Amino acid sequence: MNLLTVWKVIAVLLLVIAAFMILPVIVALSMDEYQVIPAFLIPMVAVLVLAGPFLAITRKSRSGLSAKSGFLLVTLSWLSAAAIGAVPFTISGSIPSYTDAFFETMSGFTTTGATILTDIEAMPASLLFWRSLTHWLGGMGIIVLTVAILPLLGVGGFQIMKAEAPGPSVDRLTPKITHTAKILWFIYLGLTALETLLLMAGGLSLYDALTHTFGTLATGGFSPKAASVGHYASPFVQVVITVFMMAAGVNFILYYRLLMRQFRVIGQNTELKAYLGIFVVASLGTALSLSGNVYDSFAESLRYAGFQVASILTTTGYATADFAQWPALAQGILFALMFVGGSAGSTGGGVKVVRIVAVLKQGFNEMRYLVHSRGVFSIRLNGESVRKDVIYSITGFVFLYVFFLLLTTVTVSTGGHDVLTSVTTALATLGNIGPGFGRIGPVENYAFFQDYLKWFLSFIMMIGRLEIYTVLVLFTPVFWRR
Amino acid sequence: MNLLTVWKVIAVLLLVIAAFMILPVIVALSMDEYQVIPAFLIPMVAVLVLAGPFLAITRKSRSGLSAKSGFLLVTLSWLSAAAIGAVPFTISGSIPSYTDAFFETMSGFTTTGATILTDIEAMPASLLFWRSLTHWLGGMGIIVLTVAILPLLGVGGFQIMKAEAPGPSVDRLTPKITHTAKILWFIYLGLTALETLLLMAGGLSLYDALTHTFGTLATGGFSPKAASVGHYASPFVQVVITVFMMAAGVNFILYYRLLMRQFRVIGQNTELKAYLGIFVVASLGTALSLSGNVYDSFAESLRYAGFQVASILTTTGYATADFAQWPALAQGILFALMFVGGSAGSTGGGVKVVRIVAVLKQGFNEMRYLVHSRGVFSIRLNGESVRKDVIYSITGFVFLYVFFLLLTTVTVSTGGHDVLTSVTTALATLGNIGPGFGRIGPVENYAFFQDYLKWFLSFIMMIGRLEIYTVLVLFTPVFWRR
Repeated sequence: MNLLTVWKVIAVLLLVIAAFMILPVIVALSMDEYQVIPAFLIPMVAVLVLAGPFLAITRKSRSGLSAKSGFLLVTLSWLSAAAIGAVPFTISGSIPSYTDAFFETMSGFTTTGATILTDIEAMPASLLFWRSLTHWLGGMGIIVLTVAILPLLGVGGFQIMKAEAPGPSVDRLTPKITHTAKILWFIYLGLTALETLLLMAGGLSLYDALTHTFGTLATGGFSPKAASVGHYASPFVQVVITVFMMAAGVNFILYYRLLMRQFRVIGQNTELKAYLGIFVVASLGTALSLSGNVYDSFAESLRYAGFQVASILTTTGYATADFAQWPALAQGILFALMFVGGSAGSTGGGVKVVRIVAVLKQGFNEMRYLVHSRGVFSIRLNGESVRKDVIYSITGFVFLYVFFLLLTTVTVSTGGHDVLTSVTTALATLGNIGPGFGRIGPVENYAFFQDYLKWFLSFIMMIGRLEIYTVLVLFTPVFWRR
Repeated sequence: MNLLTVWKVIAVLLLVIAAFMILPVIVALSMDEYQVIPAFLIPMVAVLVLAGPFLAITRKSRSGLSAKSGFLLVTLSWLSAAAIGAVPFTISGSIPSYTDAFFETMSGFTTTGATILTDIEAMPASLLFWRSLTHWLGGMGIIVLTVAILPLLGVGGFQIMKAEAPGPSVDRLTPKITHTAKILWFIYLGLTALETLLLMAGGLSLYDALTHTFGTLATGGFSPKAASVGHYASPFVQVVITVFMMAAGVNFILYYRLLMRQFRVIGQNTELKAYLGIFVVASLGTALSLSGNVYDSFAESLRYAGFQVASILTTTGYATADFAQWPALAQGILFALMFVGGSAGSTGGGVKVVRIVAVLKQGFNEMRYLVHSRGVFSIRLNGESVRKDVIYSITGFVFLYVFFLLLTTVTVSTGGHDVLTSVTTALATLGNIGPGFGRIGPVENYAFFQDYLKWFLSFIMMIGRLEIYTVLVLFTPVFWRR
């Protein structure tokens, strides 16, 4: 392991985060929130003083990154981003407890959207902007992670995306990342600009449009409004956000394919078809449950249903209604969707649609063996058969996911929280969704959790976001053996 | 497929069930419930008239059973047992609706213990005896199914038990089953006699001792008392039932090993160690949660905790307390246990401990590959490494299990039932547990479900009890292809 290289990348990352703090400073200046500005300047200067000289001294080292260093780097990136990103909240006094601030910032960078804020609109606009910006930066990081890094590390079945990744495949991470990252960020920036413009066309201010775009494209869910997207009565705004949530839950490589006009590849994508299929079926089912009960017309029901299905499926967590008050079927569908998640290579969290498809195919495949025990049946995804070790990798991932769901459920219940709250807290943090049912419903928040649970849930958000293995492997003896 | 042989075995099964109806008739005679006797005699005579001549005519056929016929036979066995077993309830007028009676009887034969009875103690004693007897007969069937039939069919990873089964392994089912079944039923009868005597020593009448023994050893959970085992204040009785629930959740082959004095094999059994480990850890955790809150002393807490942990872990479903009123941690632990189940080859339902161990090992194994991508790491169970195709089979099973859990959750919610009720109904029926949380809590029942849900849940109980694949394979086109 080349620890020096790891620390160098972390130093660069911290400098980048510090640089992005200029944006909330600009917001503070334009909104006359001068008293908040030091809260950003202090961590910015601290990072410059600490990371700057470190980079200057160690400039010479040019070695690549091993897989082991890669794992360590990814986990340390999210940890240090949350640690430094939380500072402005605490220094400004808006979130006095560093535990709360760390939870909020980890929730931001992991694009979860779980909040400890009880009175969102009382916060200075510049801090709420920073809070939303952590989503956007986290989403950027996730796209690079899942499209460029995890396939090379072979985490949890991400090998299936290896062949799909644009550009030549290489053994070492460094050269590839730069190339892939540039294309993906270009797409991410393009979508950001597009949604911002559309939301402004829908009557939102630049500030509101930007913050909600950050929350949408990162499938995060932070909103500077207490009523979340429900603040905006405009059907146009709700539909735009629905569409962009769904867009953010699509494998970003498919946008690259779109730019390259490789329509056939897109049409063959099993995950995309399943993802859209789930959305359509779940939206219709939810709309049927709502129609006549909660909303008068089917069209209105469909709009609210589509929004909430997209929000939970993509693990965004925005709400236009208090779905905890919806009829049982609508709630049941949303609950089931919490087990799914977005597409691999998107900003969406959860198990991911491709894994669900793969393991279900594996499950049904077994039946063919029962009838023809000597047959050879392969699992096909995206028009190609998948190697057995990839299916193995995926199944291993899904089990660890379920294991951590149960572990989180029991751990949350140690705090005296009821079963429904404990279960959906597990689903909402490990799956990076944000809201759930019970005491963490869409109009509730995470403020009431004990401090030890806030730290634990911060860890669970991180482990879920980083596809479990990436973090967990650091805790194995074999990792630290020479 | 040899359909004639299948029908012949079903005819024999129905005759056996009809023969066992003599027992509740004896109970009715001894308790002066003469008006109930025709309710048993009518189905007995009907079976004799229909199945008797059929068997006499077709006596000559002596062909073996193919794997396909095996699958069909197993599903038809449980279906026809429930169909005929429900008749006395309806004819006697105790459960006027055949839907309710079928649900109750399927719940009995699948050893689930979910009941639609709202006033249990108002039922005639002979019908309650029959209700408990369906558990005991179902448990017998399950032992033969999981130890003798499923390993040969290769369902859901049951191949791991193949090598362990006593006696020589053969290609065709028929000769083996008879031999294995005799040994296992001897053990089952022995345990039945032992528990009945111990419960009688604890002050129970023969009737009460027998019915509770049936419910215990089949991990069923039906009790002729409205307060379930909570009816008996005696700590001795509660501890006896705890021990025998745990005993019923052990792979019955291990008792055979015990009789053969093969102690080393028992000591090496991974599943047994994990099963006992889960019991100890969960009981201690639950007891800590109860102590000082619900019960004063730790010893008393441990007794109640141990009972309830054993009851849920083994999927029995008995209750000595209303655990839906327990502190959050205790509820969280019981909820997590609903995902586990008994051992393979026991009468316990659920996913089964050995599968949980296998898939977790598979999950953690992947981490070694992440560090050493060219290493070879096998999964070891019972001191031997497990073939990859068995792990495959197990993973496929667990996914279908989770899929059916979500499907059941959404289906139950179509009836307007809240999320917690829907989720735990799915867990309690697919896992053959019986009670859950919410509206199906330990002091509640299944009477309020709509008829279509009672039929659906009857199917789910059966599919869960028969290891999913056994039933599901009948719905695949490949099964019916020549």
